[in-house]
Amino acid sequence: MREMKDFFEPESVAVVGASRTPGKGGHTIVSNMLEFGFSGRLYPVNPAAGEILGLEVYRSVADLPEPPDLVVAVLPRSQTVDLIKECAAAGVKSVIIPAAGFSDAGDEGRRLEREVMDIARPAGMRVMGPNSIGTVSTGSGLATSIVTLDRLKPGGVSVFGQTGMFASGLARWINTSEYFGVRKIACLGNKADVDENDLLEHLAVDDGTRVIGAYTEGVRDGVRFARALKHAASRKPVLIMKSGRTEIGRRAIASHTGTLAGAEEIYSGTIEGSGAVRVSDFEEMFDCAKAFEWLPLPRGNRVGIVSITGVGCVLSADAAGRFGLELPRLTEATIAVMRDSLPDWAPASNPADIWAGIESLGAEATYNKVAPAIASDPSIDMLVAIFTLIPESSLDVAGLFAALKEEHPEMPLAAVLMAGEADMHLEWKKSLELMGVPAYTSPERALRALGAMWKYAKRSA
Amino acid sequence: MREMKDFFEPESVAVVGASRTPGKGGHTIVSNMLEFGFSGRLYPVNPAAGEILGLEVYRSVADLPEPPDLVVAVLPRSQTVDLIKECAAAGVKSVIIPAAGFSDAGDEGRRLEREVMDIARPAGMRVMGPNSIGTVSTGSGLATSIVTLDRLKPGGVSVFGQTGMFASGLARWINTSEYFGVRKIACLGNKADVDENDLLEHLAVDDGTRVIGAYTEGVRDGVRFARALKHAASRKPVLIMKSGRTEIGRRAIASHTGTLAGAEEIYSGTIEGSGAVRVSDFEEMFDCAKAFEWLPLPRGNRVGIVSITGVGCVLSADAAGRFGLELPRLTEATIAVMRDSLPDWAPASNPADIWAGIESLGAEATYNKVAPAIASDPSIDMLVAIFTLIPESSLDVAGLFAALKEEHPEMPLAAVLMAGEADMHLEWKKSLELMGVPAYTSPERALRALGAMWKYAKRSA
Repeated sequence: MREMKDFFEPESVAVVGASRTPGKGGHTIVSNMLEFGFSGRLYPVNPAAGEILGLEVYRSVADLPEPPDLVVAVLPRSQTVDLIKECAAAGVKSVIIPAAGFSDAGDEGRRLEREVMDIARPAGMRVMGPNSIGTVSTGSGLATSIVTLDRLKPGGVSVFGQTGMFASGLARWINTSEYFGVRKIACLGNKADVDENDLLEHLAVDDGTRVIGAYTEGVRDGVRFARALKHAASRKPVLIMKSGRTEIGRRAIASHTGTLAGAEEIYSGTIEGSGAVRVSDFEEMFDCAKAFEWLPLPRGNRVGIVSITGVGCVLSADAAGRFGLELPRLTEATIAVMRDSLPDWAPASNPADIWAGIESLGAEATYNKVAPAIASDPSIDMLVAIFTLIPESSLDVAGLFAALKEEHPEMPLAAVLMAGEADMHLEWKKSLELMGVPAYTSPERALRALGAMWKYAKRSA
Repeated sequence: MREMKDFFEPESVAVVGASRTPGKGGHTIVSNMLEFGFSGRLYPVNPAAGEILGLEVYRSVADLPEPPDLVVAVLPRSQTVDLIKECAAAGVKSVIIPAAGFSDAGDEGRRLEREVMDIARPAGMRVMGPNSIGTVSTGSGLATSIVTLDRLKPGGVSVFGQTGMFASGLARWINTSEYFGVRKIACLGNKADVDENDLLEHLAVDDGTRVIGAYTEGVRDGVRFARALKHAASRKPVLIMKSGRTEIGRRAIASHTGTLAGAEEIYSGTIEGSGAVRVSDFEEMFDCAKAFEWLPLPRGNRVGIVSITGVGCVLSADAAGRFGLELPRLTEATIAVMRDSLPDWAPASNPADIWAGIESLGAEATYNKVAPAIASDPSIDMLVAIFTLIPESSLDVAGLFAALKEEHPEMPLAAVLMAGEADMHLEWKKSLELMGVPAYTSPERALRALGAMWKYAKRSA
């Protein structure tokens, strides 16, 4: 456990290959660490010495005032073996290797990767990578990514896997388009040493991590993986994305990270048996992550739907069938309340199509009457409200959900912002998600996330 | 044919139930028609007479200076039967009924709907609805939607189906988030008379319609539907979304539009056999619509991929397997060109992961070298370029695609904007789509659209 801790909460970090040139990876890491406000001691290392971004530069690892808890080796692959020797001699126990060109690149690369591990292992050194873009920990202000990052919002979602995207493009996406916070990120690259199993075992017992998201192209130790996944999923939700579903995909994996993708059936069985949630892409991973991060677990699978549009009702119903959810009949008392907001002829049922009410009473009055009535119905475990962002549907959506949350703190609530104005989408999503109500662009996405929560809740019970 | 034409290109339109009160459907239609610049004669009808938005109001249909080509009946259901009688007497041949509360609302509603049709049919009158939000035709400036619309960009995509969303939320979505143009829209509602078959037959021979998108909850005349769908798909791409895939979904459909959803297997067989493309949601419909609208049909199924990120390559490869596409080996000449942009150790293959080149030469130089080389390879039929919107990947993306388009006018080109900055997404998407290059947020979405194009091209050949 201690070993993984140094990849996220080291007290001292050396950036070997630190650079004064903006745009170089060895400069970006130092500036990322300053941007994130790293709480430990930061040592740039470069034979040219001098100063980088106000920090004193050391000539070599041996020259450092202490053996650092973590070394980030921003060197070409040709200089990596020598550095690992130097680190071993200095007693360094954790190294991240961003360089590619190892087992992702043919026989010579594979040989070099073996050489690295032949030095690291006897020295008791743990290696993340090669081909690892780095780690992030919002708790300690660590950000070893070789790609420029802005400081991330802290939160309970930790993600890791065999892609540098987590500490580059996806981190920027989360920061500019999503409203959940991040705890830890690790990019595992070729997994010469540190792998999914290490991360699952670490994050399972990491108190600040409330939801785990993982991307894997294939694992080496399937028995340990099954155990680690099951253990982690027994403690918190684990969302796992496994590529290599098709033969063409499995071939592409071999050149990405040199991983054997393995048979799809074995993975699907292992994941299903573990209690983890399999997601098919990053969109689904984040859709589920925010639901698990923000919402209480549902007590049952019965969903109430209130929608401005009939097609929203139909698509919700189809999705409910697909994701193991039910749309129960409402009680007479609820229907009586709904009747007040609808013309006589309009059916009052679940899913509730309230367009006819909106036409006569307006969106504000109709949603504020019908949504609370459905949420209070004893036959409902979760509520989804569907909006279309047109002038006719304008209302105080934050006020509506604030009231629902206060009245039903134990109930998962989600919103669907279906079509309409692009600007209104950004505004409504922001106001809802800042209060912990996930907002999705389609009924399918909302019910898929709630279906995952129900499946997890049932197993945990 | 003439009959459908009056729902889109009437020379005169009467809005019965026109209102001076902003926010009322009968006011919105008049203002929409003015906003769209309707080229024909527009007659507001209301017993109170006077003036609405500068137009003279007539007291009744009988008072109009001519029998209008199209009547939009913005009245409560209780007044609808009398109006239909009045229209029949005046010789009106086409009526849109927005009011709900007919076969979507129990026995009494069904009885009223039958009564409407018992008057309309002997009079040779065609009825769209009830429960139809209206039609749009950008060619004639017609917009009978009861929901406020801004003027839509004209183009070759026509959409219709059993949801008011097409002439409300989805129209606003297309106008503010998408860059393809619209030809015709029709919301069919309960389909007491005008149905999918009428629209398919009309749009198949409508010259301005280059792509058809349809949403249906279930058809009544399956034999005519199979024939109409096959005929339309033989002339232009038809994207069809059919709900009611699950039992819960089929029950919800009955209360939405009073439609019998029918067995999923029959629809899937009919659609597959027709050559139409089945899409599962509106996102997929629009993803495919813009690909068909902007891109030439592929000559084969061999895709070249150039990507900043290895996971983009892997997910593309998985998607290629899923959607019937191939990622061929490149010729030696292409590989030789790629080698110039990549370090010695980096694999040069398809899909091409160019991160190592970007790290040393920058994104601009690397994409501009590798993408044209792959597009020129004789073993490639389509090209997908994958970007991650981070500072390190900044380049003149419009310049890159302008050069590719000029060099390969016959080749489908698509972009994937995978994660990264939200603002950059909006900018890049706009600059690419304004030049007719579809931009998707994931490799799966891009290859799904290209896979649909290949399937269609193969059948059309």
